[in-house]
Amino acid sequence: MTALATRLTRNLDLRHPIVSAPMAFAGGGALAAAVSRAGGLGLIGGGYGDPAWLEQQFAAADGARVGVGFITWSLRKSPSLLTDVLKHRPAAVMLSFGDPRPFADEIRGAGATLICQCQDMAHVMDAVEVGADVVVAQGAEAGGHGALRGTLAFVPEAADHLAQHAPRTLLLAAGGIGDGRALAAALMLGADGVLVGTRLWASAEALVKERHHRAIVETDGDGTLRTRVPDIARQIPWPRGFTARVRRNAFTDRWHGREDALEAAVAEEGPRYRQAFEAGDPDHTAVWFGEAAGVIHSIEPAGTIVERMAAEAAARLRSHGGATLS
Amino acid sequence: MTALATRLTRNLDLRHPIVSAPMAFAGGGALAAAVSRAGGLGLIGGGYGDPAWLEQQFAAADGARVGVGFITWSLRKSPSLLTDVLKHRPAAVMLSFGDPRPFADEIRGAGATLICQCQDMAHVMDAVEVGADVVVAQGAEAGGHGALRGTLAFVPEAADHLAQHAPRTLLLAAGGIGDGRALAAALMLGADGVLVGTRLWASAEALVKERHHRAIVETDGDGTLRTRVPDIARQIPWPRGFTARVRRNAFTDRWHGREDALEAAVAEEGPRYRQAFEAGDPDHTAVWFGEAAGVIHSIEPAGTIVERMAAEAAARLRSHGGATLS
Ligand SMILES: Cc1cc2nc3c(=O)[nH]c(=O)nc-3n(C[C@H](O)[C@H](O)[C@H](O)COP(=O)(O)O)c2cc1C
Ligand SMILES: Cc1cc2nc3c(=O)[nH]c(=O)nc-3n(C[C@H](O)[C@H](O)[C@H](O)COP(=O)(O)O)c2cc1C
Repeated sequence: MTALATRLTRNLDLRHPIVSAPMAFAGGGALAAAVSRAGGLGLIGGGYGDPAWLEQQFAAADGARVGVGFITWSLRKSPSLLTDVLKHRPAAVMLSFGDPRPFADEIRGAGATLICQCQDMAHVMDAVEVGADVVVAQGAEAGGHGALRGTLAFVPEAADHLAQHAPRTLLLAAGGIGDGRALAAALMLGADGVLVGTRLWASAEALVKERHHRAIVETDGDGTLRTRVPDIARQIPWPRGFTARVRRNAFTDRWHGREDALEAAVAEEGPRYRQAFEAGDPDHTAVWFGEAAGVIHSIEPAGTIVERMAAEAAARLRSHGGATLS
Repeated sequence: MTALATRLTRNLDLRHPIVSAPMAFAGGGALAAAVSRAGGLGLIGGGYGDPAWLEQQFAAADGARVGVGFITWSLRKSPSLLTDVLKHRPAAVMLSFGDPRPFADEIRGAGATLICQCQDMAHVMDAVEVGADVVVAQGAEAGGHGALRGTLAFVPEAADHLAQHAPRTLLLAAGGIGDGRALAAALMLGADGVLVGTRLWASAEALVKERHHRAIVETDGDGTLRTRVPDIARQIPWPRGFTARVRRNAFTDRWHGREDALEAAVAEEGPRYRQAFEAGDPDHTAVWFGEAAGVIHSIEPAGTIVERMAAEAAARLRSHGGATLS
């Protein structure tokens, strides 16, 4: 059932105006398929471009209509990955964190919807220039990588820019969208839908270790920070300007603000970080979620989350958030 | 005319669910009175506690029903200021940035509405403990001082806490509320109204120099940052954890990230900063506004701003932001 129809549901033929974020490592084919089957659009997390993992995840999507997302600066190092992935005929390809120009034509040429995730107005202008079908305005409360604009102020400003320069381009809000209230708020701000990471990371289908899942249930929204330390530990050369929002824990307490020391200790700390991540240790590695943690109290099937979010948003819109209009 | 009634308009007898932020230096009696006369509630900015300035501003409010706001850690240094101000029978007193306990009883004893502005969930818990009548959840996109939570994720989490622990306490959203879309979004998130700074800083009644006003019209939402440098230059001992959001300009380009150097140069830079501020220089002092700058394109009378914001929000709620509900 469609509770809530927008330009996004109409143009992309969805039941709910909800797209799942392409989360590196956590967002595999099972999650993307569950979101799509529930009436949203699921995106597989292309991450740092492991071709074998991506093949597995498209197989795990089991024929569901899904898309995929890439970290743009990383994709530039192995552009053939895009060509390979397009053979699966993804419904959409999202590019984030870098110049979309080198890839836009190939994506649209393959008939996929081009989604550009943007962290500031300069990125929105780039996305309009390459003719993005969908722009995501991602705010700083987002889990994972991002930058500094706040979702609430960024989305209406992006909406104004699109209305003026690319009125047919759709707009999604991302960052801190944890329930139907935030989806309804995003529509008020001028978005056509939302891109959801953290809330779906906390789903049964996400590729997340059990103790990491337990950590988000126990953490409130104050319990995260933006930091470079996970990327230093993993030696992933993220461009300056992007930081990762992760859980505040023993690992971040130890190294955040001591980036140079971590850099110097990376021969030891790198392998230790990765081992703790593999083991699902919630304290000695990064645990990847955002401020929406504050409204997440259980791990549920992704389909349940998507359907409740849409139904809650529709109810909230219908009741005008409790206000009386005259 | 009341376009939009909420618990806030009913409990505080307002026509619009809009409170003006008590902005240090910029939010005087004329602005507060204009907001109250338009049907919102105006708050005079108590700032760092200059008694003569405050007397002048209450006089400038000219009998309008206004409130006042204090920077709590600063008020502790001259608590008699509160006693003096309460003689004006302010409708409300807002406390922000520090422990509200020492002042809560005196404020309520005088019959004023106690508003506590909060930057994280720990502050919200403190506010509930002192029995605040109104909690403001202030997000990082706010102009002026603040902290790190994003408005969109913070407000619903605060709403859940109040629903459970203090259901009669009202909730305002603050940070990035620049127009009716953001007011409507705040109501969707669970707020009863909004506290607006930046958008009213850009009003005819604000005590802001002309070239500073011109700067906000010319700046988009990417053009601000959170930084400690204005407080270092002014030698105002803000507690760690709070930073100021100001315009990105030659002054912040020069010193942000070089805080120690500024500290060392403060004997020269302090007077220079203050002189440039007095002169309305937009480049060599801090210009105090937030990310809502991106939707602000002109300086208007405060009453016009308040009325349009309410009317736009009501229209947006009525049309469900363009979504079709079934
Ligand atoms: C665990 C995790 C991993 C992420 N990995 C990626 C990624 O590989 N590529 C990307 O474009 N965005 C990534 N993101 C960011 C999302 O695209 C999205 O902007 C964000 O999740 C939205 O905010 P939210 O987490 O508050 O829902 C990731 C987010 C999370 C939580
Ligand atoms: C110029 C300016 C001065 C401010 N001064 C104060 C202050 O003295 N005390 C205070 O509690 N908040 C102060 N604030 C913060 C406001 O209370 C409020 O949280 C903020 O303006 C809301 O976000 P917005 O600017 O995006 O509307 C100030 C804000 C601005 C823009």
